[in-house]
Amino acid sequence: MQTLIIVAHPEIENSPTQQFLKASLPADQVTWHELQANGKFDRQKELALLEQTDRVIFQFPFYWYSAPYILKKWQEEVFSGEQKQYRYLAGKELGLVVSLGQSLRHYQAGGSAQYSMSELLRPYQAFAAELDWRYCPPLLISNFSYLDEREKQDLLIRYQQFLTMKNPADFSEQGDWLLAQLATMGEQNSAQNGNLKLVSEQLEAQLTEYQKLTWEVAQIKLGEVD
Amino acid sequence: MQTLIIVAHPEIENSPTQQFLKASLPADQVTWHELQANGKFDRQKELALLEQTDRVIFQFPFYWYSAPYILKKWQEEVFSGEQKQYRYLAGKELGLVVSLGQSLRHYQAGGSAQYSMSELLRPYQAFAAELDWRYCPPLLISNFSYLDEREKQDLLIRYQQFLTMKNPADFSEQGDWLLAQLATMGEQNSAQNGNLKLVSEQLEAQLTEYQKLTWEVAQIKLGEVD
Repeated sequence: MQTLIIVAHPEIENSPTQQFLKASLPADQVTWHELQANGKFDRQKELALLEQTDRVIFQFPFYWYSAPYILKKWQEEVFSGEQKQYRYLAGKELGLVVSLGQSLRHYQAGGSAQYSMSELLRPYQAFAAELDWRYCPPLLISNFSYLDEREKQDLLIRYQQFLTMKNPADFSEQGDWLLAQLATMGEQNSAQNGNLKLVSEQLEAQLTEYQKLTWEVAQIKLGEVD
Repeated sequence: MQTLIIVAHPEIENSPTQQFLKASLPADQVTWHELQANGKFDRQKELALLEQTDRVIFQFPFYWYSAPYILKKWQEEVFSGEQKQYRYLAGKELGLVVSLGQSLRHYQAGGSAQYSMSELLRPYQAFAAELDWRYCPPLLISNFSYLDEREKQDLLIRYQQFLTMKNPADFSEQGDWLLAQLATMGEQNSAQNGNLKLVSEQLEAQLTEYQKLTWEVAQIKLGEVD
């Protein structure tokens, strides 16, 4: 699977979040594409990039309840004119990676932002629907600067899964993904022992949960649990 | 009341809708402000314009489910940094005038756009809420090019009311507004007889409705209607 990450941020070099994500990229099958504000986008070039891609990521900080304007400029200049021109791009996936300066609890009825992220991101969901792209549940990163090391490592894994897994929210696929990571790491004479330990811990937690579920299913079949 | 119309459109001169709206402007208390894409906005100048204004209008065509990027650029450059800087602008009103290339029935669950305009415009509603501005029910103009003359005249009136009335959706205020228009027109030695006739007709219809309502209220008080 090929993934194209479209990064919309006015100061990527000075953004700790973007620099962290950039350093977290998997080695293969991922293209990091920063949008620049100088002049018009080269429409044919951008469409060619999209054509080679299975999953498109819009990655941005949340400014006034949407992406920085450069992403909208890109949408308008690349997808100009009649939408039926873009039918050959149908079937792709759209994933959003959104960094927030506030915690998620602000984004709900009664919270300071009043609306959920699902509601505020509707224009992107409608964009995906119009192009006949599948809209993935977004990866929301809130208060990156307050994350401790362990949380950052968790984010790194979630981000890599978001970029490369077929169904990032699928439990058994997560297990497979982690096993594959472990195998790769085992092959390397690794200075990455910290990472390896973390991945092992996650896998252990997941397998435990899986075993519990399996046990519950067995009980239900025996008629002991309702 | 002072109203500032912020027009975000890449080709205002070639837009029949924008040209129609521009020609429909009331003579007083309204400022028409076109956003240009060359360079950064002069933040202090824009904030000064806002400070003199009671109602701010964002007027734009709906491109990929939001305003053209130039409006977002304006929002980001004018309202940069911490939001508490903008507390002195609290209490204003935000009204959206949105032109659509499709009819409104597309904008609902099951329609081709899947979501209602209320949902898709949430980012503007949240913007208003964060600045402590009142969000007005938007004026939506769909399929302008298919409107006949009568519908265009109706739009002209709705637009003028949207710009200048305290509560554009308030019935008795609409009556007052129309009466004021009639009075002004009567004072001019008017080549505007078409307009005058239209306004009279609208007023007559409204007054009839008002009379019916008054009658019903009276009946309710008499206990004859439940």
